Amino acid sequence: MFQSAVLTISDKGSQGLRVDEAGPKVAAFLKENGYEVIYTGILPDEQEMIEAEMRRLAEEKVTLIVTTGGTGFSKRDVTPEACQNVCTRMIPGFGEAMRLASSKITDKAWLSRANAGILDESIIITLPGSPKAAVENLEAVIKPLRHGIEILLGLDSECAVKEPEK
Amino acid sequence: MFQSAVLTISDKGSQGLRVDEAGPKVAAFLKENGYEVIYTGILPDEQEMIEAEMRRLAEEKVTLIVTTGGTGFSKRDVTPEACQNVCTRMIPGFGEAMRLASSKITDKAWLSRANAGILDESIIITLPGSPKAAVENLEAVIKPLRHGIEILLGLDSECAVKEPEK
Amino acid sequence: MFQSAVLTISDKGSQGLRVDEAGPKVAAFLKENGYEVIYTGILPDEQEMIEAEMRRLAEEKVTLIVTTGGTGFSKRDVTPEACQNVCTRMIPGFGEAMRLASSKITDKAWLSRANAGILDESIIITLPGSPKAAVENLEAVIKPLRHGIEILLGLDSECAVKEPEK
Repeated sequence: MFQSAVLTISDKGSQGLRVDEAGPKVAAFLKENGYEVIYTGILPDEQEMIEAEMRRLAEEKVTLIVTTGGTGFSKRDVTPEACQNVCTRMIPGFGEAMRLASSKITDKAWLSRANAGILDESIIITLPGSPKAAVENLEAVIKPLRHGIEILLGLDSECAVKEPEK
Repeated sequence: MFQSAVLTISDKGSQGLRVDEAGPKVAAFLKENGYEVIYTGILPDEQEMIEAEMRRLAEEKVTLIVTTGGTGFSKRDVTPEACQNVCTRMIPGFGEAMRLASSKITDKAWLSRANAGILDESIIITLPGSPKAAVENLEAVIKPLRHGIEILLGLDSECAVKEPEK
Repeated sequence: MFQSAVLTISDKGSQGLRVDEAGPKVAAFLKENGYEVIYTGILPDEQEMIEAEMRRLAEEKVTLIVTTGGTGFSKRDVTPEACQNVCTRMIPGFGEAMRLASSKITDKAWLSRANAGILDESIIITLPGSPKAAVENLEAVIKPLRHGIEILLGLDSECAVKEPEK
């Protein structure tokens, strides 16, 4: 079972001024899909803090790091920028797939700046802050994501079935 | 009513060697959709000049800065690069939405390198130079754009309806 | 007839430990579509080597440089990063079009990090390593690609039919 962490990015949530529902919903969705959720946290919309937490979780070899919040147009929204800064390789298809799926529900999907990338042995996915949109977005990539993780960790290889990598 | 500016990016247009139709058509479309067009200009395909004009308009707090031209494969086409350079946060969904909508009309839509981003309190959108394509592209994002502007300017907040930001 | 080169990016292929089928299939597809294939090569998944080869082919004015392999989640996959590093202007629509077309066949399409860009008078397209996916991806952009090349080389101009460039 792959380990995951869920980070809620919210100024108000981090100050206890609001109970965020998106984090728990994303965590529940991950468990339903066979991921262990070993950590949940709430951070303000501070890019350096978000980056530090992403790096820390990657260093601890958490396979899947999912954030919710901070992907929109608000002046404080910088989660995608944090993701881009820490990742060495981006996964453009995840942002595309999330917006494409979500655009079938609402035009506002195109406002989401959600993205995804790879840092060492971790995959980072940023999701919108709305509980409904967060789960819808994650749902759009949950199936291929598993295969991506298997390839990243060398547990599978499309190209070398008979000669698995190490 | 939000303020907007329309910049035509065209070597020939800037030298008076061609009358560009895309700029006026984009301006008319913006007016129809409730935007005030406070400035229109024509610039050559010079990245530094385009960047300087984008920065100037953002400093003057023009909410929406739309360019037309310079988004293709021609050697002089550098408008998306200018947009990327001046913006601190990109809006990948707008490029995706514009190409996806346009691809239903023509395969050549995939050649458009149009993009969009945020600089301070301004949103910059780069559109193709063809009058038809420019309006089609803008039409693909005009509805969610308004909501994005409201969030950027703190006039709306998906997340805190009862506790508006400031 | 435009000149093209096909680079297979594969650690095993470059050591002679595997016969790669994607390269020859991509080359055959290019010939069917009217391109001359003047060079084929195999390189390991070493970003610096891939970049050097892309630059060399662009300096030799090869119009279309197509790679296959190294676009996925494997730790060694760095072909899109090489493409991004050498190109001065990216073509986001090609990655989008390839994944969109491929996603109609399999959800795993969203894992492809394939991209494309422009370097001087060359267009570089990175394709997945699977022979089937590589050809499917290239097929998704082969028609608009020709028009893009014509514009890049100044052989056509959408905007100035009556006043051809030069």
